[in-house]
Amino acid sequence: MDGVTASTTARTPLNPHPDRLLPVDPAQRAIARRLYDSVRDLPLISPHGHVDPALLAADEPFTDPASLLVTPDHYVTRLLHAHGKSLNELGLGDGEGAPAAKPREVWRAFCSHWHHFLGTASRQWIEAELHDVLGVRSQPSEATADELYDELVDKLAQPALRPRALFESFNIEVLATTDDPADDLRHHQALAADPSWSGRVVPTFRPDRYLDATGQGWLRALEQLAQVSGVGTDSYQGLVRALESRRDHFREHGATATDHSAPDPEMAFLPAEEASRLFDTVRGGTATPEEARLLSRQLLGENARMSSEDGLVMALHTGSCRNHHSPTFSRYGADTGHDIPMRNEFTLALRPMLERFGTHPRFQSVVFTLDETVFSRELAPLAGFYPALYLGAPWWFLDAPRAMRRFRDAVTETAGFHRTAGFVDDTRGFCSIPARHDTARRVDAGHLASLVAEHVMTEEDAAAVLRDLNDALPRKAFRL
Amino acid sequence: MDGVTASTTARTPLNPHPDRLLPVDPAQRAIARRLYDSVRDLPLISPHGHVDPALLAADEPFTDPASLLVTPDHYVTRLLHAHGKSLNELGLGDGEGAPAAKPREVWRAFCSHWHHFLGTASRQWIEAELHDVLGVRSQPSEATADELYDELVDKLAQPALRPRALFESFNIEVLATTDDPADDLRHHQALAADPSWSGRVVPTFRPDRYLDATGQGWLRALEQLAQVSGVGTDSYQGLVRALESRRDHFREHGATATDHSAPDPEMAFLPAEEASRLFDTVRGGTATPEEARLLSRQLLGENARMSSEDGLVMALHTGSCRNHHSPTFSRYGADTGHDIPMRNEFTLALRPMLERFGTHPRFQSVVFTLDETVFSRELAPLAGFYPALYLGAPWWFLDAPRAMRRFRDAVTETAGFHRTAGFVDDTRGFCSIPARHDTARRVDAGHLASLVAEHVMTEEDAAAVLRDLNDALPRKAFRL
Amino acid sequence: MDGVTASTTARTPLNPHPDRLLPVDPAQRAIARRLYDSVRDLPLISPHGHVDPALLAADEPFTDPASLLVTPDHYVTRLLHAHGKSLNELGLGDGEGAPAAKPREVWRAFCSHWHHFLGTASRQWIEAELHDVLGVRSQPSEATADELYDELVDKLAQPALRPRALFESFNIEVLATTDDPADDLRHHQALAADPSWSGRVVPTFRPDRYLDATGQGWLRALEQLAQVSGVGTDSYQGLVRALESRRDHFREHGATATDHSAPDPEMAFLPAEEASRLFDTVRGGTATPEEARLLSRQLLGENARMSSEDGLVMALHTGSCRNHHSPTFSRYGADTGHDIPMRNEFTLALRPMLERFGTHPRFQSVVFTLDETVFSRELAPLAGFYPALYLGAPWWFLDAPRAMRRFRDAVTETAGFHRTAGFVDDTRGFCSIPARHDTARRVDAGHLASLVAEHVMTEEDAAAVLRDLNDALPRKAFRL
Repeated sequence: MDGVTASTTARTPLNPHPDRLLPVDPAQRAIARRLYDSVRDLPLISPHGHVDPALLAADEPFTDPASLLVTPDHYVTRLLHAHGKSLNELGLGDGEGAPAAKPREVWRAFCSHWHHFLGTASRQWIEAELHDVLGVRSQPSEATADELYDELVDKLAQPALRPRALFESFNIEVLATTDDPADDLRHHQALAADPSWSGRVVPTFRPDRYLDATGQGWLRALEQLAQVSGVGTDSYQGLVRALESRRDHFREHGATATDHSAPDPEMAFLPAEEASRLFDTVRGGTATPEEARLLSRQLLGENARMSSEDGLVMALHTGSCRNHHSPTFSRYGADTGHDIPMRNEFTLALRPMLERFGTHPRFQSVVFTLDETVFSRELAPLAGFYPALYLGAPWWFLDAPRAMRRFRDAVTETAGFHRTAGFVDDTRGFCSIPARHDTARRVDAGHLASLVAEHVMTEEDAAAVLRDLNDALPRKAFRL
Repeated sequence: MDGVTASTTARTPLNPHPDRLLPVDPAQRAIARRLYDSVRDLPLISPHGHVDPALLAADEPFTDPASLLVTPDHYVTRLLHAHGKSLNELGLGDGEGAPAAKPREVWRAFCSHWHHFLGTASRQWIEAELHDVLGVRSQPSEATADELYDELVDKLAQPALRPRALFESFNIEVLATTDDPADDLRHHQALAADPSWSGRVVPTFRPDRYLDATGQGWLRALEQLAQVSGVGTDSYQGLVRALESRRDHFREHGATATDHSAPDPEMAFLPAEEASRLFDTVRGGTATPEEARLLSRQLLGENARMSSEDGLVMALHTGSCRNHHSPTFSRYGADTGHDIPMRNEFTLALRPMLERFGTHPRFQSVVFTLDETVFSRELAPLAGFYPALYLGAPWWFLDAPRAMRRFRDAVTETAGFHRTAGFVDDTRGFCSIPARHDTARRVDAGHLASLVAEHVMTEEDAAAVLRDLNDALPRKAFRL
Repeated sequence: MDGVTASTTARTPLNPHPDRLLPVDPAQRAIARRLYDSVRDLPLISPHGHVDPALLAADEPFTDPASLLVTPDHYVTRLLHAHGKSLNELGLGDGEGAPAAKPREVWRAFCSHWHHFLGTASRQWIEAELHDVLGVRSQPSEATADELYDELVDKLAQPALRPRALFESFNIEVLATTDDPADDLRHHQALAADPSWSGRVVPTFRPDRYLDATGQGWLRALEQLAQVSGVGTDSYQGLVRALESRRDHFREHGATATDHSAPDPEMAFLPAEEASRLFDTVRGGTATPEEARLLSRQLLGENARMSSEDGLVMALHTGSCRNHHSPTFSRYGADTGHDIPMRNEFTLALRPMLERFGTHPRFQSVVFTLDETVFSRELAPLAGFYPALYLGAPWWFLDAPRAMRRFRDAVTETAGFHRTAGFVDDTRGFCSIPARHDTARRVDAGHLASLVAEHVMTEEDAAAVLRDLNDALPRKAFRL
């Protein structure tokens, strides 16, 4: 324990309270409970996340709790890593031949550090998953690790815990996946063609690696895109046409949105000839880093232009410093827990996009941030003027109860509720979807209850708003 | 409704609760109510706002609710615009001949979107105006739009709702307007000379367009200033003398303060000759943008120097990106809802001013910000050391209940209450003045009640502080 | 009173409430009280502060309340200065021969402005000191100034209020001082050698003036270091060896940490030859300001490298603009109340250090900030991945109750509690140590109670966490 008291080494019951995350004041809690009850069973709309469509297409059973809850969730592995576990010990393979720990060992490591998750969002989600989805009734701890492991291995073999059965029991109305433009979308096709399957699973067009001209993988990405699209990508116009043809492919398979990660939200809108010359310079390998960055911004701007034509909603997720620790990245690859947020700026950065498309009848963008200082200062005022811009839910490190409250506190007085885009779970953990939406419903119910209790709005109005946040708004913002 | 539930299409009563915005916990609310009651009827001191003095000089009746509450209030029009209304539909004329909607249509548009204002500060102010000032008893909605319109047109014709009668019933002790240095202040003179009028209305010297040397209107502004002041403005020293003579003119008419908007609060204090040369370069049209920006900073610094001599309090409102959407600006002009806040910095930017005048016996400055991150980090520490610097109330998007609470939470522990400058309503909506001050009184009462309930101070001390916030502090900070 | 109501000129009792700073909701307060009671009497661990070890070595009595509570505390003098008192009037001598006010006058000035401290952290600490340590039973005010002064002069002469007696009654288990590398640590030695003294007082290695190559004092500092260490500091390698030898000296006297102030946390790790050349250029007086800054960063990075070898924990306190008001600095010197926070950035700035030592088995760093925007955005995500990085307690202007709550709210959901380093009092006021730790215990108890009341964790878990925050975590983070 490194000298730190372990508080839950003994067997303690796992029993999430029905009123959890609701406000503490009794009168306010009563209002919040009524509001929450009015939406708790609404179908889930999940416009952005990272569930692999193959999971549903194949419908294979999950095998064990470590592979389900620990190893693939870099929210979880990062904190275990901070407490001294190597990523190998958490089940990640590396490029150097060190063997990844076996699932049971990973699970033991997780259980023995479970008290270090006290107060974190991850702990709240996992408690709900364990209890509500997996039927577990005692807290993970060193003492319970092995028996919980055995219990869960048994349970996961049951038909009711297969992905498709869970999809139905989760009451998911629509699930958007995140997909590479080169993807043939065969899993989406398979699901659509399967008469035994009635769920709605739509792809999202995520072209980051074709737009980021600063990295080494860009040329390889261009080649792959050319192959898949049948359009040459050795010119700027070719790349643009190739991307457009893949967007069409995605739209034909149900996509309603594109999704973009970038260090910051700046876009460029250069004249065609200048863009072509810039492309040639970067592709020729003689560009400065600034030129490569400019081309990346130009390609992002080009996607905004495409959205104004084909109507795919442009989701912007910016401001993360990806793969902060190079030694870990070299050894274990991306998405291993060290993408760290950076300060972001939107007022000036989004101006070129908004000058062009901010009042465009077809263009629509949902903007996310990891930097909560921009909520009141920049995003709420922007979403409070531009019809094309929706304020995305608090994202990533901020999609936790208190951060969500700060989000509503920061934006509502300026932009109201109806310029926000509803909740996105953004998860890689399929089984965490209901817990995450449930958390958002509780927190929004609590926020609205505070406004009712302060006589800022009636409970009837609050109930209507809460329904909109869980139904009309995500549909509208993502055109679902 | 664009797929979003309208929650208040039916007729619902408009009945602001007497305890609105007070804390929810019963014990804390009881304290807050007593505190609030102790100041609710104090006269209003309004040291900064945008009421047109002609309104009071002429005392013409208001005509209809759209012209009173919607069209001129860019807090309101911006959110209607975000929900798809063009500014034409909201009653704004443009330079392209498209007809502005008639007031009744504007009012209908407003009423049918009223539920989109749920949770916003604007809704809270307008509810109070409708109920307390205009005697309306049902919520705006599509169903009630026409009858409310007719009711209000009738009411506004009554003598009790004329501007001067309202001024008295609002219990305004002093109202500062915001005026152009070229203004002859004849409305202020007329009011002062009118034996039937006993209210105190003072001008504020706002020289932005003479100091901002980066814009196209600067040369025209200089000419106008020369004409009005009778001092040539074709040299730096001439411009300085012309500004000084207009400051004298304003002081003779009761002004106690100047007001300055700028992208950021940086000032320059160049040697006289360098300033002269710079002026000549910019005026000659051969300057770089950086030189024009430097001259603007120099002119702002020159005004600080003037304040240290004539004692006019220097109010600084910085950090807004004005007219963010050029197409809207070209068509509808300024103040149309798309001035968007930017990140601001004060610690280094104010240093040149504070090095010179931070402990000066005559100089005094009140600093406002749209960037709430600087409250705890920069402004409270600065106001906690420099006697010349007062911390202005949360401004613009931040003058809403929860933002005000965050302001007090962020600054009090470092600077106390007595280095803050009291509330400013900063409004263009004359009828919103009482509602805005009332909101501030409620929020401050609630904040103080939380400190009493946590046993940080006694209720007696809290009551004394609350009185200071509404009386002694704004007087002292603005020398009223 | 400058027109501001003085609320406490009359005699009012001083009687801090036993439940002060605990949550207001009754159920939540009951939980918080139980949690607080479980840690209120734990020994104090003080890993960072500014108590002079000579105070304990000499054990002379304090003389009067002004010299004890006002003049040396720039938290207090800065706010009196903002309210118009010169630093002379507060007992500070200057370089211009103006006489410093006598203690009784200083005390009167303090008492007559006491109501201006309402709501500040300083007032809460001083109330606790006056009541709990000094046995005072009425609030300072103009009316009580003289009798309080006399009462306190008498009391301070009592043996029970001498520094060593207080150290014991404060229940301090370990106290870290902050010391110059050139210090011979004789007071620490004297304490260690004194058989009548059993307290643990350890030095901290604070090499700022040897690392900051941008200032005028650097060359003088190098000379002094050479003299003390017996190692020539006229080369980069010499300076490095001299610092290493002084670190050894400190470790031999019980030091477990180094402490670093810098404008920002950036470090450089240049190749040895480049560092040498840079050193020679700066030392030769021909360097640009950028080169001097780079050398400072290099020297900070060199200390990180040393920590990875000798295991001294590296505490980083960055982001203050020191001596903001030059005229005050020239006249009264440093630490006179005008060190003002600046915006800080950590994600990119700490990357070079973390690339090298973020997963190093021996390196450990505790990072503090004055810029609360980085808590959720940068520091919690960093501490949630890197085992070598601990999140320091909210510092300086932020070590006040509501700022501490914001800190926990901002970091816990991402990093949990066990990546934070416990409380540091960072005080120059010896008698304020218990009050400051007590405040932190109350606030953390309240925060944990809010999580219990929201059913995020059990009360048993909360109690274990609170104990860790006050015991295991500061020990572990500072290797005490």
